Parts: sequence; structure tokens; C-alpha cells
Amino acid sequence: MRPKLLLMAYESCGGLHKEDANKLALAIETFHNFSLVHDDIMDNAQLRRGQKTVHEKWNTATAILAGDNLLTKCYDLILNTEVNNKERILKLFTATATQVCEGQQLDMDLPNQNQVTEAEYLEMIKYKTAVLPAVALQMGALAANSSNALAETFYQFGLNLGMAFQLQDDYLDTFGTTEAIGKQVGGDILENKKTVLYLHAMLNLQGEPQQQLKNWFTQTTQDNTLKIEEVKDLYQMAKSDVYLLNRKAAYENKALEHLANTGMDDANKSIFIALFELIKNRIN
Amino acid sequence: MRPKLLLMAYESCGGLHKEDANKLALAIETFHNFSLVHDDIMDNAQLRRGQKTVHEKWNTATAILAGDNLLTKCYDLILNTEVNNKERILKLFTATATQVCEGQQLDMDLPNQNQVTEAEYLEMIKYKTAVLPAVALQMGALAANSSNALAETFYQFGLNLGMAFQLQDDYLDTFGTTEAIGKQVGGDILENKKTVLYLHAMLNLQGEPQQQLKNWFTQTTQDNTLKIEEVKDLYQMAKSDVYLLNRKAAYENKALEHLANTGMDDANKSIFIALFELIKNRIN
Repeated sequence: MRPKLLLMAYESCGGLHKEDANKLALAIETFHNFSLVHDDIMDNAQLRRGQKTVHEKWNTATAILAGDNLLTKCYDLILNTEVNNKERILKLFTATATQVCEGQQLDMDLPNQNQVTEAEYLEMIKYKTAVLPAVALQMGALAANSSNALAETFYQFGLNLGMAFQLQDDYLDTFGTTEAIGKQVGGDILENKKTVLYLHAMLNLQGEPQQQLKNWFTQTTQDNTLKIEEVKDLYQMAKSDVYLLNRKAAYENKALEHLANTGMDDANKSIFIALFELIKNRIN
Repeated sequence: MRPKLLLMAYESCGGLHKEDANKLALAIETFHNFSLVHDDIMDNAQLRRGQKTVHEKWNTATAILAGDNLLTKCYDLILNTEVNNKERILKLFTATATQVCEGQQLDMDLPNQNQVTEAEYLEMIKYKTAVLPAVALQMGALAANSSNALAETFYQFGLNLGMAFQLQDDYLDTFGTTEAIGKQVGGDILENKKTVLYLHAMLNLQGEPQQQLKNWFTQTTQDNTLKIEEVKDLYQMAKSDVYLLNRKAAYENKALEHLANTGMDDANKSIFIALFELIKNRIN
């Protein structure tokens, strides 16, 4: 999705040098893969896209170095283009790279934090997930010599789209079906992730149900299926599922507003809207 | 040493914007620290500069992320200067960053390789140690708007200086004194490192002594002191110590040739020669 967003922004802003745009798109995808390789070490993940993770297939040292090399490769790719606004693109890319690392640090810190606010959770997913598609769009626009204002509008479109995407992901992780999402439902619950669902339910439940939810997230259990079912029920009791979908819809609406402000012609806009609908209704 | 080299090259080429040069120098030092933080994870090192390593003090995940952030910080620093030849500097820095990672990979691969040649060992230390001071000098020269040819001469000076520096380090690790080098003598021997000393001795010893050296490097022993003493004796029997010092001297002479070719005035040259002598005669 990320490289495609960059190319779409580039083309819709009248960019003509496909080969340079491809290098930028590849840099974005390479950066995403850098973050996955390093995150998988930190999260001790065994599988990625159905295959062994790099550190599992080789070893941690190789995975660290592979990630480091992917990161420098991003700069190699961007530097070896002749796009417009190259220096600005490099600065934006660098600032975003820092934010993505911060997002990963927040993601590791939040579970150990006694009190987590919804704002903190949203900030974490913003950095970890939403800023990269946002900057991909911004880079594509700038590379095609768009104005800074237009590029910023694309950025805001991507940021809100990314937030909606992640909240959709959070929703499906709990309320989707295994067939639809291609993995076990309830992963976030089993990992005791303090998502918007959990944070909203803890704020809005009281008495016994609130205590039950707290217990499920702090006490160990052997019965994972029961835990998932009970926590889902508690989320629904608190109407946290409805709340989450409303939050998601708000980001979608903001994304559409920014899209309208890009001033693209209808043909181009329809491509973005098609992508938007795809993400909005994605079932896998 | 690395940031100082950059600043010296910058000033000797007539650079006037100290603040920008400082940012470049900081980028070089930040990159060096990035590589140390990640290498220490890979090498499972407990101490660095007498203090706990980052992954020991915190944890591996934090050390990976800290390193990643240091690497992006380098680009942030370079991008936020107004130096001459900025794009060329960014490309050289990126190429060097890739080489340093390759050097670390080689350093991890060589011990598992049955046959190691001296050329392979020298390539490893070139990438791992020598290219960074070399590019520091080159960046300093280019930032002060030197010609590419002059910057390349500085690079070659730094490369040969770096090689001499590392071979000196290898020599002292085996034939120095604990007081002089500030750490236990014989670390390379205990780690079975296939340094120039080992490779030369294996090629030049025959029969029983060669077999003894091989045994010390393949069989485990409880008596570290004995191992160090015996291996040192074998190295000296093969005149590997003399060979190593000759190799080092050859790099020093090449470095001096390149220094002569920079066409610096005597005042500037004398500063480089003073630094050169310091490295050449360093006892710690």
C-alpha cells in the first residue's frame, strides 16, 4: 500500500519520471521492511507473512545488520534520484524514520505503564503506523514539484487514512473472523494490549464488570478461548466496539476532507477513493 | 579521533563555517556510536569504555532502537547544514555506512570460515575500521569546497592511517602491556581471532609448531595464561610480530605519501603529522 500511495501522489501531481518515483517508492517499502525486521527481533516474533522471521531463520546479529543495511539502502535509493525537492524529501523521510522508531519504543513501553490514556495509545499508532503512508504521499507530491501546501494536504490525508487503517485492524483483531483476517482472532486480547477497546471499556464499565476486565488483563489463564469470549462480551457491554468504529469513521471523514482539498481532478480522485474504500471495507 | 580528523580537513581546506563542520563531525561520531551499540549486542559485549553496554544496562530491544535512532540522527545532522557538496557528502556517508555494516558481517563470518586469507582479514578491518576515518577526512575537505581530487587524497590518507591504526591495535593486543593498553593482553588470542599474526604464523610455521598453534586455536583450554604465552612464542618463532610491524609501516608510509600530495602548507601538515605520530606511537 505505501509505495502505491507514493506513486499515486506523484502521478496525480503530474510527475513524469516513473523510474525516479519507483526508487522513492522502493525506499518507503524498504524502510517498512527495515522496521519489520528490527521489530520482529524486539517482539520475539517467530513468523512474518507465513515465513520464518529473519532472526529466526538466521540469527539476531544477522537480523540487526540486515535491518541496518535496509535503512542505509533507503537513503541510497532517495539520493540516487533526480526528483524535485530532494533535500526536503530527505529531511521529511529522516524525521519520519525517527518517529517510527519512537512509535516502536512507545509500543514496548505502554504495556509496562500502569495508566495508559487513549491519547497515548493513539500517539503510539500514529507514529508506528500512520506517519509512513502519510510521508509516502507527501514525498510523492513533492517529487512531482507540488507546492508545500498540497504536499501537506496529502500528508494529512495519509495520516488520517493510516489511523483509520490501524483502528480497523484493531477492530478486526477482536471482532473479525479467522477466515477474514487470516490469523487467530483475539491476539490483542491474549497479549493484554491496551487498545482503544480496552481503554474505553475500562473507563465506561463500573463495579464487577470493570473488575472482571482488569482481572482478565492481569491474571494468567489457561483457557484462552474463554478469555477472548469474555473480554469481547465486556467490550460489547461497554459499547467499546461502537465507540471504536465511530473513532475510525471520524478519521475516515477527515481523510476525505483532506482528499477534497488536494484539488485533484475527478479521475485522479476516484482512484484514491477506490483505494480508500478498499481499506475501509477490507476484510483481510 | 574521527570527528577531529573531519574538522582538521575542513579547516586545512579553508572552511569557515565552524558550526556546520561541527555538525558533520558529530554525525561521524554519532555513526561510530551507532555501530558500537549494535556491534556490542552482536558480540554480546558486557562493557564499553568501562561502563555497561546499552543492551546490558537496558535491554536488547532498547539497544536496537537506540542504534537505529543514532543512525537516523546522523542524516538529520548532515541535512541540517549548509555545507558545500552536501549531496555528494550524503552519498559518500551512505556508501561508507553500508561498508561498515559489511565489515561487521565479515568480522562475524571469518571465525566460522575454515580458510581465511590475509586479504580477507585486511578487507574486514578496512571496512570495519578504516573507511570511517577516511570518509571523515573526505567529508571535511568537500564541505570546505575542496576539489574531488584533493578530497580523495584525504580519503586515501585516512584509509591508510586507519589500517595502520588497526594493525597497531592488533600488535598491542598481543605484544603490549596491560598498563599500556588498559585491558587484558591476549584478548585476540583467547577469542581465537584469525589476525594477521595468526595467519602469517600458520603460513610460515611448519610441522610441530604449526600443529601446536592450530591446536591452541581449535581446542579448549583452562589455562588462559599458558595459552597466551605459548601462542606469543609461536608468533615470535614465525617472526609474525616483525611481519605485522612491517605491514603497519607500509600503511604508514602510504599515508604519509598521500599527506604530501594534499599540497597543504607546512603549518597544516605539521598538525596532521603530529596526530599521525601520536597514533603511530600510541601506547594506549
